[in-house]
Amino acid sequence: MTTHHFKPAHYHTTLGAHEPVLRIADGDSVVTTTLDAAGCNERGEQAGPPGNPQTGPFYVEGAEPGDTLALTFDHLWPNRDHGYTSTMIAANVVDPDFARELPPRERAEWRIDRERGTATLVKPDTRLGAFTLPLAPMLGCFGVAPANGEAIHTSTPGRHGGNMDYRGFRAGVTAYLPVAVPGALVFVGDGHAVQGDGEIVGTGIETSFDVRFTVRVVKGWSINWPRGEDDAFIFTVGNARPLDQAAQHATTEMLRWLISDYGLDLIGASTLLGQCVRYDLGNMYDPAYTMVCKLPKGLLPGR
Amino acid sequence: MTTHHFKPAHYHTTLGAHEPVLRIADGDSVVTTTLDAAGCNERGEQAGPPGNPQTGPFYVEGAEPGDTLALTFDHLWPNRDHGYTSTMIAANVVDPDFARELPPRERAEWRIDRERGTATLVKPDTRLGAFTLPLAPMLGCFGVAPANGEAIHTSTPGRHGGNMDYRGFRAGVTAYLPVAVPGALVFVGDGHAVQGDGEIVGTGIETSFDVRFTVRVVKGWSINWPRGEDDAFIFTVGNARPLDQAAQHATTEMLRWLISDYGLDLIGASTLLGQCVRYDLGNMYDPAYTMVCKLPKGLLPGR
Amino acid sequence: MTTHHFKPAHYHTTLGAHEPVLRIADGDSVVTTTLDAAGCNERGEQAGPPGNPQTGPFYVEGAEPGDTLALTFDHLWPNRDHGYTSTMIAANVVDPDFARELPPRERAEWRIDRERGTATLVKPDTRLGAFTLPLAPMLGCFGVAPANGEAIHTSTPGRHGGNMDYRGFRAGVTAYLPVAVPGALVFVGDGHAVQGDGEIVGTGIETSFDVRFTVRVVKGWSINWPRGEDDAFIFTVGNARPLDQAAQHATTEMLRWLISDYGLDLIGASTLLGQCVRYDLGNMYDPAYTMVCKLPKGLLPGR
Amino acid sequence: MTTHHFKPAHYHTTLGAHEPVLRIADGDSVVTTTLDAAGCNERGEQAGPPGNPQTGPFYVEGAEPGDTLALTFDHLWPNRDHGYTSTMIAANVVDPDFARELPPRERAEWRIDRERGTATLVKPDTRLGAFTLPLAPMLGCFGVAPANGEAIHTSTPGRHGGNMDYRGFRAGVTAYLPVAVPGALVFVGDGHAVQGDGEIVGTGIETSFDVRFTVRVVKGWSINWPRGEDDAFIFTVGNARPLDQAAQHATTEMLRWLISDYGLDLIGASTLLGQCVRYDLGNMYDPAYTMVCKLPKGLLPGR
Repeated sequence: MTTHHFKPAHYHTTLGAHEPVLRIADGDSVVTTTLDAAGCNERGEQAGPPGNPQTGPFYVEGAEPGDTLALTFDHLWPNRDHGYTSTMIAANVVDPDFARELPPRERAEWRIDRERGTATLVKPDTRLGAFTLPLAPMLGCFGVAPANGEAIHTSTPGRHGGNMDYRGFRAGVTAYLPVAVPGALVFVGDGHAVQGDGEIVGTGIETSFDVRFTVRVVKGWSINWPRGEDDAFIFTVGNARPLDQAAQHATTEMLRWLISDYGLDLIGASTLLGQCVRYDLGNMYDPAYTMVCKLPKGLLPGR
Repeated sequence: MTTHHFKPAHYHTTLGAHEPVLRIADGDSVVTTTLDAAGCNERGEQAGPPGNPQTGPFYVEGAEPGDTLALTFDHLWPNRDHGYTSTMIAANVVDPDFARELPPRERAEWRIDRERGTATLVKPDTRLGAFTLPLAPMLGCFGVAPANGEAIHTSTPGRHGGNMDYRGFRAGVTAYLPVAVPGALVFVGDGHAVQGDGEIVGTGIETSFDVRFTVRVVKGWSINWPRGEDDAFIFTVGNARPLDQAAQHATTEMLRWLISDYGLDLIGASTLLGQCVRYDLGNMYDPAYTMVCKLPKGLLPGR
Repeated sequence: MTTHHFKPAHYHTTLGAHEPVLRIADGDSVVTTTLDAAGCNERGEQAGPPGNPQTGPFYVEGAEPGDTLALTFDHLWPNRDHGYTSTMIAANVVDPDFARELPPRERAEWRIDRERGTATLVKPDTRLGAFTLPLAPMLGCFGVAPANGEAIHTSTPGRHGGNMDYRGFRAGVTAYLPVAVPGALVFVGDGHAVQGDGEIVGTGIETSFDVRFTVRVVKGWSINWPRGEDDAFIFTVGNARPLDQAAQHATTEMLRWLISDYGLDLIGASTLLGQCVRYDLGNMYDPAYTMVCKLPKGLLPGR
Repeated sequence: MTTHHFKPAHYHTTLGAHEPVLRIADGDSVVTTTLDAAGCNERGEQAGPPGNPQTGPFYVEGAEPGDTLALTFDHLWPNRDHGYTSTMIAANVVDPDFARELPPRERAEWRIDRERGTATLVKPDTRLGAFTLPLAPMLGCFGVAPANGEAIHTSTPGRHGGNMDYRGFRAGVTAYLPVAVPGALVFVGDGHAVQGDGEIVGTGIETSFDVRFTVRVVKGWSINWPRGEDDAFIFTVGNARPLDQAAQHATTEMLRWLISDYGLDLIGASTLLGQCVRYDLGNMYDPAYTMVCKLPKGLLPGR
């Protein structure tokens, strides 16, 4: 179990079968950094292209198509003292006629206090004043190389992960991703210091991050959509439009999980989900939206 | 402030301008009962038509079109010892190809222990065993007479409330409904002892309820969609298909609320929601789906 | 077979179980008039409420729930020399960000030449000039009383017909509607002198009409959604949002029709539709959208 | 103006910046062949991978990002005597509950008579008998390399074209595609001898094709979505889910075209489309659906 310290020299705005920047073993950890969504680093300098540039890809020894990659976020924290958001709600999130009233989107600036763990609105000047929120750092975009030889832009999520913009992908969480190419090819990027459900202004508080993650290859465990777990929940992730289809993907994936790994049949799984399921809205802004289907671990039958 | 004890003699399966069963004053409370979704009462007898039959309507003195009716749920609790659910997830909640694998929907039975506050699965026999959940009673369907002379079936929600099937409508919550006819004409029904997000098997644990509610007329406060609040959150409710449109209605309604009552402009409201909003999935089963847009009260600027 | 000449004295803006204005027999015809969508008559006077006011309802002797009403449009023609449209595309029909650029909707005026069968744009003054189109008269809103005691506003379509705004409902066409109450209760209104697919500005060329229709009761023929036929096609109509769901309803209804009346099984019906089906977009503006599934009559197996 | 005769040796199942197989000049024509969707050639032999394998890419000299590629289909015709379809309607095209009744999809076989221009169902045996249709050859999947370094699978369409499965892309039509990389990189494949609207069984009559096309570079004409024209119509193509969003893309693109090239403002363009637009349903099966917005050329103001 090695911990690799990796300093990125270039970045990608597609998730695809790019040349690996590092080969790591099953169980290894990586300490690295990510740029903000606009391509700026810890000093606020333009260090990569805009559009959620990704650090990686990391080649994980032993990962083969049909396996699942477990990606645990050990540490996610801003590595600079400022971030930005958009000032205006996205037109697709409001009633079409209301969209006609929306002024142009501008850039809001936030001060990040990494010691106290807060973000404070600096500008524009609104009735919110020096509005302060506790940090809740998460990765907006990460994933593995997709199947079928595709290279998918970092604006959108899919079966491979990608730009899910789900605030549940925070430190302590393990994400599961379907391995589609040898080595899986792991990418990480797009840190948000804070983000509401749906990423409805089109941004979280975008900033550069220090990241530490650990990989594990789950041989022969085949999944169709990203999954995850934290202390309290297991969850599945559907990425599609409209939200209905994203919810269908997530729900179907959860049913499959309950049936294959927890010994339930469709009646048992339906009965359990019917009265106990929770859904989170990941993003409702990107080319594909994200719905998350969650179940409290305490309700799971023993494996 | 009178408390009325009302024993229903008939029930409605549309919300419309039906003859009031009782006239009550602004501030009054009503203690009454509701049938289960299939029309059965506290003794399990068929006492009304199936299809979420409603108790009411109650005419609230002084409520006029353009006002808002505040409906506080003081007490919601099952009044019998059994309930039922469906055994099978709804076909519209899973991937279309997966729907082909779904067996027919049957009826599951639950025992309700009103003293201990639990519901326990009695049949069918699944690997869940005698699965027990804490009661979380809520009303699936309630509302006021709709606008434009419509009479809307209790299978579906709309601007008038109706069959929202949102587990957040529990005791302690105040719902706000747009008054469309003189007296508002309040209906209540469809108690669920427990329900997951989305009502994805098409039922909560359906049972008959004891209900106590209190009405208040908010003169001259005009709303477009149902709203609500509890100790922790204010929230707005959008009812439509697909979920995207339901979310658009709820989000637009929340923006309007923040702007008209909390002194924010669109930039302030967008900035606040963008990093702090939460969405709940009410139902994803009925003819119109329900999305709820929530904001923690602690983040609201002073009125 | 009587032909009734009916002069309306009042109008409805919901389709529901209203008091019949006339009782007619199976096979009878009615000659009557309809107001324009704003409630104005052949002299341009306000004669009813705005919102697609309906003439009727007509009680058809012998029509019972479970039957189908065949409604043939014998004659549909404007009865005045002017009509109006909206000047601006609806916000829900364009990309959300493009919606921000849309100016307010205003009223365009058209001159109708009933002799020559044309409509000519009178104002506003655009680069289109005195733009002239051939008349293609159709009824935007018509139907029967809905099931379940509902009264549904004339802004929206459903299983009962209603505001489908489909340009295919023109003279020579027979519409089939599911009878939900005794007498069916037929309503007609909302004549459009011309209309594009989708009714994407929210109007056709709205004007008052002379209407002649003939009813026929098809005993024991039970349908789920409106159907129709003309010389060349049989078709089915789905009304819902999003368009996907409207298309699902229409396609399912067409499969049912092919299987029950044309002796095909699912494989035969799928094979036929797969290579030969046509879809029309009825409306993409109203609270429910309309998709039409069509099949050329020449391809139908003999009954 | 050279005519190139190109015999493909390998095929692609993504549209991306693959190595060109041939460099051609602005105005040149190419005579080539395409495999069927399963990868079989004119002799029915497996000659490439399944999944709409593409012939190409062809590098067009002088095409630069920001230009538009005009791709005229001069000749599209099957080059063998058999084709196949699926026997079963896709689950996503019918009501979710109806999907539960669908049997598995199997393969239907068709005989193609290239002399007489017909396709005849050979098996399975259905009540349709030896059902015969006139050939209406079209390309289901073609396009250019996408923007942003993406490589997109041939199962789905997008701004770059791809798997639109629109029966309007037949001989005599010119498609317009946004050039995103130097040389445009043109791909062609997935010939359908016949196809209904929506490709609702998931296939047209799939077969290998002889193809002749001609390219033209339209310098400095920048488009957002595929466009096209034939003798009678100009049209625009939106690819997305749900159909609503596809229609929004197509409609917005048509408005832009009318405004930039035909001198209309939004009021003129809205008025014209509102009463005259036609929509076609391209596909309702692929990961992104296709809606086409059409306007008769005779109604266009002079350029």
